[in-house]
Amino acid sequence: MGGRGGAICNPKSLLPLLFSPRLAPIRRISHLTVRMASPPDPSAPPPPSSAPSSSASSAIDFLSLCHRLKTTERTGWVQRGVRKPESVADHMYRMGIMSLVFEDIPGINRDRCVKMALVHDIAEAIVGDITPSDGVPKLEKSRREREALDYMCKVLGGGSRAKEIGELWMEYEDNSSPEAKLVKDFDKVEMILQALEYEDEQGIDLEEFFESTAGKFKTDVGKAWASEIVSRRKRGK
Amino acid sequence: MGGRGGAICNPKSLLPLLFSPRLAPIRRISHLTVRMASPPDPSAPPPPSSAPSSSASSAIDFLSLCHRLKTTERTGWVQRGVRKPESVADHMYRMGIMSLVFEDIPGINRDRCVKMALVHDIAEAIVGDITPSDGVPKLEKSRREREALDYMCKVLGGGSRAKEIGELWMEYEDNSSPEAKLVKDFDKVEMILQALEYEDEQGIDLEEFFESTAGKFKTDVGKAWASEIVSRRKRGK
Repeated sequence: MGGRGGAICNPKSLLPLLFSPRLAPIRRISHLTVRMASPPDPSAPPPPSSAPSSSASSAIDFLSLCHRLKTTERTGWVQRGVRKPESVADHMYRMGIMSLVFEDIPGINRDRCVKMALVHDIAEAIVGDITPSDGVPKLEKSRREREALDYMCKVLGGGSRAKEIGELWMEYEDNSSPEAKLVKDFDKVEMILQALEYEDEQGIDLEEFFESTAGKFKTDVGKAWASEIVSRRKRGK
Repeated sequence: MGGRGGAICNPKSLLPLLFSPRLAPIRRISHLTVRMASPPDPSAPPPPSSAPSSSASSAIDFLSLCHRLKTTERTGWVQRGVRKPESVADHMYRMGIMSLVFEDIPGINRDRCVKMALVHDIAEAIVGDITPSDGVPKLEKSRREREALDYMCKVLGGGSRAKEIGELWMEYEDNSSPEAKLVKDFDKVEMILQALEYEDEQGIDLEEFFESTAGKFKTDVGKAWASEIVSRRKRGK
């Protein structure tokens, strides 16, 4: 990975994570042929604009890993007995839509927000959705996720695409830009909107999700949207 | 909707679609307060950059509609007996990731591809996932989806955000740009990759998805990725 703080990664060390009981079992991954990326040779000719078979292979390896984002159920809902809980991909999808619909804000790059929303939980394809109740310290969670992201970027074959994904992920993790602050708010807004929807549909009480996020929104949009959701919840009770 | 060909839409006519048996039931949508957008008053002051409560209300209405993209299972898999089939949002999510990872192609705006991938099936939040086996003529399917999209853009309150979503959707529908051609290929690539994953995981035969897409990829990337997936499938048999 070309991003800041990328760990040197031994793919073998990640195999236990790939088969974590949290994740849906994989019956066969014979078509996933993981290869380590070599550093680019500056004297080599630039790659053609059409995708050669080697980059196709890397891309399909990477996209096969991302399949698990569709099959990994968000832990918070599983632990509260929600029926048919959303996937990690579902959650990131609606965060992408949030990034598409907020009113223009000077200094905020919308397209970067959309991409960051899609990438911010991508390491969960390997480590699963670790929540505070799992007892994994925050630093250890971050370390595992960085290692997983680094591994995924190597599967992708390095290069500019892996670099952008690594940078987007790290920017969010480090909360180091206005876009990261906004997308972090969307992460919480999406969660409480989903909590309200589950309460409505399944007749359960998910108060703790509202309590744990109250007062933690940092942007005007995040505050306004969260306030709107909380108001609707109060009106519906 | 500000896009081309936007139909004049009567929200009441969409109510039967909102309660189509194809879609997951909604137990209560009392917090969804749909209002028709008024045309902007040119003499009015521009909206502030932070989201006022009215735009928050429109945004949450819109995002609540998008919830159904998470709960609507892709029809093709349901009809073939796939267990725990992916949602429409899952499918669009990985198409967004495909748009993030293809190698640079001169003349292709990557960020536009990412956004188009997230928007292209968004009307299914209302009309559901209509497939050829449903017996709905192609033109009628397109008409229903345009009407649904128009309705969603009105829920969003019109303005520049609704305009961009409408334009992205129409560009894809009309196949009217290099980005649309590429994202259309991703739509098929994502489907056959998912088909291969279901075959591997669930021991079923989804040959028809490979047959129906064979020879239909239009871009170099689409052809290379599809060829890679088909090769893996042959090796795995």
